[in-house]
Amino acid sequence: MRKGELTRRAILDHGVSVAARVGLGGLTIGELARGTGMSKSGLFAHFASKETLQLEVLGTATAAFATSVVRPALSTPRGEPRIRALFDAWCASGRARQPGCAVLVQAGMEFDDQVGPVRDRLVQDHRDLADAIAQMVRTGCSEGHLRADVDADQFAWDLYGVMVSYYHSYRLLEDPRAEERARTAFEALLDAARPQPSDVGPLA
Amino acid sequence: MRKGELTRRAILDHGVSVAARVGLGGLTIGELARGTGMSKSGLFAHFASKETLQLEVLGTATAAFATSVVRPALSTPRGEPRIRALFDAWCASGRARQPGCAVLVQAGMEFDDQVGPVRDRLVQDHRDLADAIAQMVRTGCSEGHLRADVDADQFAWDLYGVMVSYYHSYRLLEDPRAEERARTAFEALLDAARPQPSDVGPLA
Repeated sequence: MRKGELTRRAILDHGVSVAARVGLGGLTIGELARGTGMSKSGLFAHFASKETLQLEVLGTATAAFATSVVRPALSTPRGEPRIRALFDAWCASGRARQPGCAVLVQAGMEFDDQVGPVRDRLVQDHRDLADAIAQMVRTGCSEGHLRADVDADQFAWDLYGVMVSYYHSYRLLEDPRAEERARTAFEALLDAARPQPSDVGPLA
Repeated sequence: MRKGELTRRAILDHGVSVAARVGLGGLTIGELARGTGMSKSGLFAHFASKETLQLEVLGTATAAFATSVVRPALSTPRGEPRIRALFDAWCASGRARQPGCAVLVQAGMEFDDQVGPVRDRLVQDHRDLADAIAQMVRTGCSEGHLRADVDADQFAWDLYGVMVSYYHSYRLLEDPRAEERARTAFEALLDAARPQPSDVGPLA
């Protein structure tokens, strides 16, 4: 890897950490200059504008989320094991306070009332995430782990709420039972989506 | 009301609108000066520091949430009707894009990795909210609308996730089915908490 590319990556990784603390909106070339020891003009050579910087930091955060949460799930057997792997990895990323995962969730809320390319990118990333979860749920249905009539998009919607409530209770409220509560909510979602004994015929 | 107090309220209301768009962190005396047409020195006479301004804007937002979401529920009969009234009012405030309600939810995430009085105040406000919801659920149990063994704190935790997922899908993703999905999730929570037919005895 060329030196310029190494420097760029180091800046972006630092940018993700800063954004996890103060938001993408609080991420300025000046703030990055203080954190990396580079000059503002040196940083401008890498990122022409604040918006370019925000977009690249967001891209770095989303890639980190994909690497640590989505991809491990996709290498797990289809159906319920895959949905569980996603949940476990998402909790682990929260527990470890991985900044990339936090940025993807937080920035979605930070930019929900703004317009422009950062919001557009967030909408796309979050739609992709919801679609990926719904697809995992659909394979859960086709494998027979979940009922065929489960609304996969609703399940993805519900699971997102569980994970955000987890972030809220773990990061803001510092509730020692945050992950236990998330797990209770997750198991309730799965239980409600599983075939009921009466679904398998009168002799079951 | 004295003129100074009227001016102060107008500034704070404007501050809540700005914070709903760019976050409490993006709320500066300079930004408020542009929006209200007041001088920075005039604003400094009202708010000694950015932190004072953030705390007072947050207080205004929390009061708006209490007025439009919590209090209408508390004037509704105890038990399930009260929990429903809370949910309906919370959805209505989201639909109307009431900035105070948005700020309370968003700022909780914005400040979850910061320290200081703004975070401390948010922790208190969110604990109060969770306690208020849990108390409504407990009256639902004592009225017999919900099972006696329902974990009221877990219900409050789950409901917060539903509402944040609603904000996410309505405000960021602009999903036309956002409220329908929230209602589906809410009804599933209530259904799971209701007495089951088998709970009322073998002859039911």
